[in-house]
Amino acid sequence: MPTPSRRDLANAIRFLAIDAVQAANSGHPGMPMGMADIAEVLWNDYLSHNPANPGWFNRDRFVLSNGHGSMLQYALLHLSGYDLSIDDLKNFRQLDSRTPGHPENFMTPGVETTTGPLGQGFANAVGMALAEKLLAQRFNRPEHAIVDHRTWVFMGDGCLMEGISHEAASLAGTWGLHKLVAFWDDNKISIDGNTDGWFTDDTPARFEAYGWNVVRDIDGHDADAIKRGIDQALLCVDKPTLICCRTTIGHGSPNKAGSESSHGAPLGHDEIAATRGALEWEHEAFHIAPAIYDGWRVGQVGQFREDQWNEAFDKYAARFPAEAAELIRRSHAELPDGFAAAADAYIAKLQADGPVVASRKASQMAIEAFAPHLPELIGGSADLAGSNLTLWSGSKSVTTDDRDANYIYYGVREFAMTAISNGLTLHGGFIPYDATFLVFSDYARNAVRMSALMGARAIHVYTHDSIGLGEDGPTHQPVEHLASLRYIPNNDVWRPCDAVESAVSWKAAIERADGPSCLVFSRQNLDHQPRNKAQVADIARGGYVLRDGGANPDVILIATGSEVGLAMKAAAQLGDNVRVVSMPSTDVFERQDAAYRESVLPKSCRKRVAIEAGVSGFWGKYVGLDGAVIGIDTFGASAPADKLFPHFGFTVERVVEVARSLG
Amino acid sequence: MPTPSRRDLANAIRFLAIDAVQAANSGHPGMPMGMADIAEVLWNDYLSHNPANPGWFNRDRFVLSNGHGSMLQYALLHLSGYDLSIDDLKNFRQLDSRTPGHPENFMTPGVETTTGPLGQGFANAVGMALAEKLLAQRFNRPEHAIVDHRTWVFMGDGCLMEGISHEAASLAGTWGLHKLVAFWDDNKISIDGNTDGWFTDDTPARFEAYGWNVVRDIDGHDADAIKRGIDQALLCVDKPTLICCRTTIGHGSPNKAGSESSHGAPLGHDEIAATRGALEWEHEAFHIAPAIYDGWRVGQVGQFREDQWNEAFDKYAARFPAEAAELIRRSHAELPDGFAAAADAYIAKLQADGPVVASRKASQMAIEAFAPHLPELIGGSADLAGSNLTLWSGSKSVTTDDRDANYIYYGVREFAMTAISNGLTLHGGFIPYDATFLVFSDYARNAVRMSALMGARAIHVYTHDSIGLGEDGPTHQPVEHLASLRYIPNNDVWRPCDAVESAVSWKAAIERADGPSCLVFSRQNLDHQPRNKAQVADIARGGYVLRDGGANPDVILIATGSEVGLAMKAAAQLGDNVRVVSMPSTDVFERQDAAYRESVLPKSCRKRVAIEAGVSGFWGKYVGLDGAVIGIDTFGASAPADKLFPHFGFTVERVVEVARSLG
Repeated sequence: MPTPSRRDLANAIRFLAIDAVQAANSGHPGMPMGMADIAEVLWNDYLSHNPANPGWFNRDRFVLSNGHGSMLQYALLHLSGYDLSIDDLKNFRQLDSRTPGHPENFMTPGVETTTGPLGQGFANAVGMALAEKLLAQRFNRPEHAIVDHRTWVFMGDGCLMEGISHEAASLAGTWGLHKLVAFWDDNKISIDGNTDGWFTDDTPARFEAYGWNVVRDIDGHDADAIKRGIDQALLCVDKPTLICCRTTIGHGSPNKAGSESSHGAPLGHDEIAATRGALEWEHEAFHIAPAIYDGWRVGQVGQFREDQWNEAFDKYAARFPAEAAELIRRSHAELPDGFAAAADAYIAKLQADGPVVASRKASQMAIEAFAPHLPELIGGSADLAGSNLTLWSGSKSVTTDDRDANYIYYGVREFAMTAISNGLTLHGGFIPYDATFLVFSDYARNAVRMSALMGARAIHVYTHDSIGLGEDGPTHQPVEHLASLRYIPNNDVWRPCDAVESAVSWKAAIERADGPSCLVFSRQNLDHQPRNKAQVADIARGGYVLRDGGANPDVILIATGSEVGLAMKAAAQLGDNVRVVSMPSTDVFERQDAAYRESVLPKSCRKRVAIEAGVSGFWGKYVGLDGAVIGIDTFGASAPADKLFPHFGFTVERVVEVARSLG
Repeated sequence: MPTPSRRDLANAIRFLAIDAVQAANSGHPGMPMGMADIAEVLWNDYLSHNPANPGWFNRDRFVLSNGHGSMLQYALLHLSGYDLSIDDLKNFRQLDSRTPGHPENFMTPGVETTTGPLGQGFANAVGMALAEKLLAQRFNRPEHAIVDHRTWVFMGDGCLMEGISHEAASLAGTWGLHKLVAFWDDNKISIDGNTDGWFTDDTPARFEAYGWNVVRDIDGHDADAIKRGIDQALLCVDKPTLICCRTTIGHGSPNKAGSESSHGAPLGHDEIAATRGALEWEHEAFHIAPAIYDGWRVGQVGQFREDQWNEAFDKYAARFPAEAAELIRRSHAELPDGFAAAADAYIAKLQADGPVVASRKASQMAIEAFAPHLPELIGGSADLAGSNLTLWSGSKSVTTDDRDANYIYYGVREFAMTAISNGLTLHGGFIPYDATFLVFSDYARNAVRMSALMGARAIHVYTHDSIGLGEDGPTHQPVEHLASLRYIPNNDVWRPCDAVESAVSWKAAIERADGPSCLVFSRQNLDHQPRNKAQVADIARGGYVLRDGGANPDVILIATGSEVGLAMKAAAQLGDNVRVVSMPSTDVFERQDAAYRESVLPKSCRKRVAIEAGVSGFWGKYVGLDGAVIGIDTFGASAPADKLFPHFGFTVERVVEVARSLG
């Protein structure tokens, strides 16, 4: 075989995708066939990465926002020498394979973020580009550009139709993220067919309206044109760039190119044969000629690049040892020495002082106490800073050039905010927190799910956690949200009952390396609860005995957040043999061993009442068929909070009455 | 008092808002003060409505998408003569008042839709404008423009930052909804302050990119300029119009105008006094001079307009009696005579025929069976028509001029789709259904919540309901979604187990006049279940005994959807005294009387196993502390579905084993 052409290199992507989808009898060949030429140029000529070390900190980040085209990414990873074998590709979409249906950051080396839910990869990329900008601002020094990489993102028409693309693009424009380059796969086909009937935006004009640099009219099958487009992007030093690439979905397939029929199903044996003919590709399924591999690996200067960077980093470390050590610490996601001790001391002091504050205020106090130890903590709110109480005395807006910039004014963009948090934490170097009212977690919900699926340390702060929000009424009062967030696998939800539990929840969220936490706080003041040292320590177990009621309690009251104080008052009326269990995090409690859980909720005690200003059904599993739940199964109402709690039955009298009515 | 000026009429709005917020000590005065002049011009000179009959079908629709400015709308309703008294205004934000914190369509005459969650009102308005266009297309005849009204929407910077504004604006542009006019309250202030730091879009250019007619640079405090802007909108016959109004938030307040301090808190007594001085408003709180009322009511020609329309309608009815009767029926949201009987006949036939199909296919069969009876049924999917199976033989795209246009290609826009459904049903004349994969209900979640809060008959079709989706993997496999949707108050979730239950769920959703239904369907084929007539009838009760197991069963298996077949097979192995309860809708089941519920799930039987390919916690309330749940509490995986069910423990053997392990 002669030296392969660029087209040959791109066709290797096409046929790996075609063959893997056919073998799996499932998948999306059209997009990889359409974007192969763009991907080949980007990966061979521009992408700065080291296949031998996917974790190299200064690598370019590549995000496939149109994640259904996963075989494009797997083919790229395989061809450029990542630890992903041809057998892995043959196992596409099979159980436990490293080539699942959509790219999963936790399964495949070189996959930066899990994609598939459209538009979110793009927002992740905005978060990654922001992380790079801020780390450069913090750590780079004249002649020492130690953090210096780009973020590249592929996206399709679907990503651009999704609302999150608006939110994320708007922020990227405002922030001037010039190292972010997005490629639009403009193929005019989505699943339902030609997009003329449902996608008529002037996308270039739209992105210009966001302050982007837009490169129009690139032929996405012409390597030279693609190079020209990328070169134009690299020239721009103050705006993110959108490169608009006209492509043909299923390019190369004689009968399915340009049609939705190539989007989400195998081409079929006959059409594959026809495509092999049309593209003059003579190899068998999954066979890549050595010359093709060589063509891909000639372009791979990854190890050289990383070696260069390591040298530069050594010089930087010699000159700025403290900064270098800090960057290494942050890039390894290690908390500073002494954080846990400082946090515990703060918690102990809070228990002694007993402040009576709203838990949203307690949250702010915790941020104020912890953030000076944690320069990696970066926060923000969706235009509710003064309500969510997410600002602290060291907050500095990321729109400034301040080295310590650490606060993000997201505007009213809950979904992009949350996906950007995911991007910040996936990039590394940051522990992000974001915030809105609990009810508007709805707007961000799938990005919370993605935090959890990816095991990403993102902290989602949700204030105004119940009817306690008051006058704004049912549109703003969460009812089903606590339960719904708890049901997202690998998501830790905390609803603290006082300032002490609030601080513990923040500590747990910061220390949780393998997943997100939702910290849910009240608008209104909450009583302080008395605890001994062991009880303070047990808060971190998610649920614990706050009031003992003896070894064999007659009744157990289980409560969270603002209802714990109510339970304590009711218990005082009910008598000595009534236990109160504070359950700030059912997710964490359920990870405790069976003996501990039994010690808190002995199975023999069936007279149980759960109290929470949210849907009652969630608590059925804790109270069983013989217990009762005081909850809310309707929408709330607009009125002052002190009118709403009695209106919805949250009174000491009712708790006492319900407890006495049991068995 | 001399004849009041336009400014005086607008100031009446301002002071009603100022005084009501002050009296409530809660609320948002800044927006009503900023948009008062625009509102005054629109309502007095353009809005076609009849305050004496808020239900007049051909009225213009007015939507306050920035719903926190609710006092603007209440003031407008009061001043223009709706049934909303000054005492109602004095009760702003109090329990059970007709003036809640945000506008609620079910509490206040003249409020078309509940708003507050930003951006959704705008999308509702797009749905209303589409409804008008399609009804006009269907019912109007030459010289008989019997459906002919506009939809007006106010929105602020917050609405425009939200992603849903992108989705909704894009569709409105594609559909050329020229009777939709949106006013942008361009005041450069959001809750966190001056928007320079987080909202830098060129909004006029952005909307032009969507194909909108954009009227720029209107001084929102100059009545003549506002009139010019509206007149330009009325001239446009092929595009929706955005009128960009520069305003000052809190206009008239000497010290708080132009500042976020006027946004979400009372002005305070001193500043109110200063504002009275600045605006030369000499009246006491809540006092509106008769001349001001006269000024507002002189502009009110509503009854005249409705009378004119009634005359025109009579002529139309004389000429086109069938169409007139049909429009009346649809506008009254009455189902056609005979629908229920036809549906029941179809269901009985299905039970007899016993087709083995995927429930998504059964859903399509139900649409095919029911839609010919229901011209008001209008469907669509977020770019998944071929997967959701939402098309039927009578589907005709709304982008055509076909009189029977009834199908909406929404593109990949789940959130706007769902909010547009809400707008369609709130407008009247339609029963909308929308569709996506169940997992992507996340993207639309708060709009589903709004359907439920508003009691809106919208049908949300969610297919690919579990790990049964297969190879696309965990991003596409719902786990927590069934439980989470069930917890939304007033939302009926159905997960049918076969074609018969699927048809019953469709019938129930269509007949449910006071709220939404989520119909959840499988990708994969499901067994047909045998039933007698009584059992077929009981499906509509949400849960019923599918296999008896005797009057005092030893074990009860509770299952939904694809797991019902599994439960039946396990029961066959377990023995005669094992009951199987099919529970397609827990929401509906829980509305049944206690005796029925007890007859299905006798409390004495504690050996209960619930089986559902979703989070287990939800079923705790049904199985209690002594039962067991076979569910999934982790994310799914990418593999063929027939590999995933055993992988996650959904086998006959495991059900048998778990059931035998009890008690």
